[in-house]
Amino acid sequence: MEHIRIRTTEVAAHLGERVRIAGWLHSLRRLGALNFLLIRDGWGIVQVVAEGEGEIGPLLESASGVETVLAVEGLVVSNAQAPGGLELHHPAIEIITPVAEALPVALNKRSLKAGIATILDHAVIANRQPERRAILRLGAGVMRGYRTALGARGFTEIQTPKIVAAATESGANVFRLDYFDRPAYLAQSPQFYKQMMVGVFERVFEVGPVFRAEPHDTARHINEYVSLDAEFGFIKNHFTVMALLRDVIADIFACLQEHYADDLTLLGVEMPPVPAEIPHIHFAAAQELILRRHGVDVRGEPDLSPQDERWLGEWAQQEYGSDFLFVTGYPMRKRPFYTHPDPSRPEFSNSFDLLFRGAEMVTGGQRLHRYDEYLAALAAAHLPIEPFEAYLEAFRYGMPPHGGWGMGLERLLLMLTGMPNIKLVTLFPRDLTRLVP
Amino acid sequence: MEHIRIRTTEVAAHLGERVRIAGWLHSLRRLGALNFLLIRDGWGIVQVVAEGEGEIGPLLESASGVETVLAVEGLVVSNAQAPGGLELHHPAIEIITPVAEALPVALNKRSLKAGIATILDHAVIANRQPERRAILRLGAGVMRGYRTALGARGFTEIQTPKIVAAATESGANVFRLDYFDRPAYLAQSPQFYKQMMVGVFERVFEVGPVFRAEPHDTARHINEYVSLDAEFGFIKNHFTVMALLRDVIADIFACLQEHYADDLTLLGVEMPPVPAEIPHIHFAAAQELILRRHGVDVRGEPDLSPQDERWLGEWAQQEYGSDFLFVTGYPMRKRPFYTHPDPSRPEFSNSFDLLFRGAEMVTGGQRLHRYDEYLAALAAAHLPIEPFEAYLEAFRYGMPPHGGWGMGLERLLLMLTGMPNIKLVTLFPRDLTRLVP
Repeated sequence: MEHIRIRTTEVAAHLGERVRIAGWLHSLRRLGALNFLLIRDGWGIVQVVAEGEGEIGPLLESASGVETVLAVEGLVVSNAQAPGGLELHHPAIEIITPVAEALPVALNKRSLKAGIATILDHAVIANRQPERRAILRLGAGVMRGYRTALGARGFTEIQTPKIVAAATESGANVFRLDYFDRPAYLAQSPQFYKQMMVGVFERVFEVGPVFRAEPHDTARHINEYVSLDAEFGFIKNHFTVMALLRDVIADIFACLQEHYADDLTLLGVEMPPVPAEIPHIHFAAAQELILRRHGVDVRGEPDLSPQDERWLGEWAQQEYGSDFLFVTGYPMRKRPFYTHPDPSRPEFSNSFDLLFRGAEMVTGGQRLHRYDEYLAALAAAHLPIEPFEAYLEAFRYGMPPHGGWGMGLERLLLMLTGMPNIKLVTLFPRDLTRLVP
Repeated sequence: MEHIRIRTTEVAAHLGERVRIAGWLHSLRRLGALNFLLIRDGWGIVQVVAEGEGEIGPLLESASGVETVLAVEGLVVSNAQAPGGLELHHPAIEIITPVAEALPVALNKRSLKAGIATILDHAVIANRQPERRAILRLGAGVMRGYRTALGARGFTEIQTPKIVAAATESGANVFRLDYFDRPAYLAQSPQFYKQMMVGVFERVFEVGPVFRAEPHDTARHINEYVSLDAEFGFIKNHFTVMALLRDVIADIFACLQEHYADDLTLLGVEMPPVPAEIPHIHFAAAQELILRRHGVDVRGEPDLSPQDERWLGEWAQQEYGSDFLFVTGYPMRKRPFYTHPDPSRPEFSNSFDLLFRGAEMVTGGQRLHRYDEYLAALAAAHLPIEPFEAYLEAFRYGMPPHGGWGMGLERLLLMLTGMPNIKLVTLFPRDLTRLVP
C-alpha cells in the first residue's frame, strides 16, 4: 500500500480519491454479499463497504473480530446514509493486530450497556467507547481552556510538590507515606505552595493531582482528582477573585464550543450560558431565604447542606435565570485558618462557593496576607507554628492581599455531562476499594 | 490614587503619563536627597526616583525595608541610565504590607550569594530572586511549548492516577503508602496508563509528577519530578518516535525564544540549535567507537556509563557539530519487559536515549504490542501475570505498534541553564532529606 495514512476526520477532504486509514474494527455487519465495517481511529469513525469475500478476505482468514487493528485503503464516496455522509469503497484491508476474543464490554453501542462496576473494572477497554471517549476528551478540553484563559491574563503555570511534610487543611483525610523512613503525606491541595508562589510570579495556576483520604463512597467523591487551582495578588477582596473565575469559566466553555463541538454534539451537551455577572448571595441571607421560601430554619448552621444548595440553585434559576450562583461569606469557624475574615463582620469570611445547578463546583476566597494575622490564626486554631515555618516565611517577607480558588476537573465534567457518577467521567478512578486499573 | 495599576513591563507604553504600579521593594539606595527604588512585580522591575523625604516619606514612617509590598504612582520618564531605559518620577508611595526584618537571603544581587542549603531552606523567598525566577519561568515555558507542539500534532492530554497498585518498572525504588489499609505505591511513571490510552486516543501526552524512591543524593537526581510523557500508535519503529521527539524539542526551544526572550537574556542562555536530523548511533557501534577512540573496551557492558556518554557527546560535537545524539538499540536485558526487541538482532532493543552534550536527556522507544509477546516477556522476566491483568487487557483487545518517551522537565532545565545542581532549577525540590518547604 502506498498512500500515507490519514485520520478518519480528514477523509471528507479527499472525496473521489483513494486514501489509507488505520484504526480499530469498531463493528462488522454482513448483509449478504455486502460487508459494512466501521473503522475507529483516535479521532473518529468511518464506514467501509466491502463487497463479497474477496474484499473482506483478510478479516475472514485471520478470524478477526471487533477491536482488530487494521489499515484500509479505499475510494472515498459520498453516501448520505453513511455516518458522516461518506464511506470507503473497494477496500484493500491489511490486518495489523488480530483480535478473536469477545470483549468484556461491547463498544459499538450508542451507550455502554454494562453496570458501573464492569465499566470501571474494564476501563482500559471501556474508555475506547465513543461516548465515553468524548467525555474524557472534554476533560482535555477543560484543561486546555483553563490554561489558555489564565495564560492570557499573565498567569504562570507551576507544578508544586505532591509529597509534603504537613497536611494542608488539617491532619484528617490525608494519605500517609513512608519517605526514607520519615512520615510524609500526599498533598490534599497545592494551597500553601500556590500562595508562596504569589510572592514570586504574582499570578499562578496549577493543573495537577490532589489526594483526599476521605472514606466516602458517593457518586460525587473520588480519592484522587485533578485540581484546577489559581492564586493571585493585589486583589481588593474575594469579589476580585469571583470576577476572574467567572471569566475563566466562560473562556473554558467557549474553548469547548470552539474545539470540541463534535464531542458535545455526540453527548448532547448544551453548554450553559455564563451570565455576564454571576448572581451572588451572602451566606446569612441565603439561610434567611431558605427559612422564608421553605420554612426550614437553618440559621446558625455553620455550613450549607446539599438540600440547602439545591434550594439556592432553584432560586437562582427562578430569580436570575442563572445556572450559577455565588454564595459568599461562609462562617469563619468552618473555613481553614488562612481564610480572610470579612472586615465588617469578622465572624463571616471573605470566601465563596460557586454553585452550579444547586451543587458546589468551586471553592475560593481571599486569604490572610499579614504575618501577624497568621500567627494569631494558628494560635486561635490551636495549631503549632513549627510545621508551618517555611509557609509563614512568605508572609514574614511581604505578601500582597491575594486569593484564589480550587476547582475539581472531574466535578466540572460531571456537571457538564450530567453523568450519574463522577467515576464515569474519570480516566481511571480511585475510590475506597478501587486501585486497579 | 486613581490610576488602574499596570504591570512594570507595560510602563514603556506610557511614556510621559502618570501610571500606577505595584509590587515589592526590590532595593532602595539613598544618594543624598535622591532615593532610588527598584519595584519588582510578577513580571519585571522598574526604577522609581523619589526626591527628598517628602516623596520617600511613607517608607520612612513605616520603617519598611526591602520586600515591602507597595504601590507607586509616578510620571514615566525616559532615562538611558535606568534599568530598561525608563523610570518613574515624582512618586506617590502607598505602603501595602510593610517588611522591617532582614531577609534570610539577599534578593537584589545579580545572583544569589548563598550556599545551596540556604537557598533551598529558604526557597519560598529565594524563588523571588530575578535570576532564579527566570529559571523557574522557563519551566512554565517548556510545559507550554511541549503542550503546543503535541496539541498541534493531534495528541490528547491525559492525567493518569499517581496512586497505583503495582510498580511500573520493577518493585524497587517505589514509595509505599497506606491506601485504606491496603498497600499501594506512587507511580514511577505513567508508562502503563499512557500505553492503555493509545487504545483510546492513539496519541496522548501527560505533564505530571512522578516519584522515585532512589536513595541517591547527586546533582542530577530528585525524588519527585515533572515528567513530560508522550505515547502514540501506528509507528514503524523507534525511529518514528525519535523523529517526532526531535520536532517537539525544536518546537519547545522556538517557544522559549518567542515568549521567554527576556528570561533567556537575563540568564545568558543561548538556545542550542536542533539539527534537522539528530545524528544517531547504535549501542554496539558506540561501544566499538569508544574502544577505537579512547582505548577503553566497554563491549559487553549492558549499559553506557556517564563517561561513555560524555565521550559520545564529544564525538557527536566533533563529527556532526551537534549538541544532540541518539543512541539506539540498548541491550534488551537492561530494558523493561515491555520493550520491543530489534527484529533483526533480538538481543538489542528498538529503544533509544537522547543525549544532550553527553548526558541523558530523554529515554524512549517502541513497546511490545501483541498480547502473546507480553505473556512471553513477563514469563522471561519471572514476573507474575496477575498484577498486570488490567494493563494486559489493552493488548488482548487490539493495540497497534506504538512507542513514546519520558523526559524530565527539571533535567531539561538543568541542561539548558547550565546550573550546577538540579535542585536549583526545581520550585521546591524533594531529596533524601528535604521535605520542606
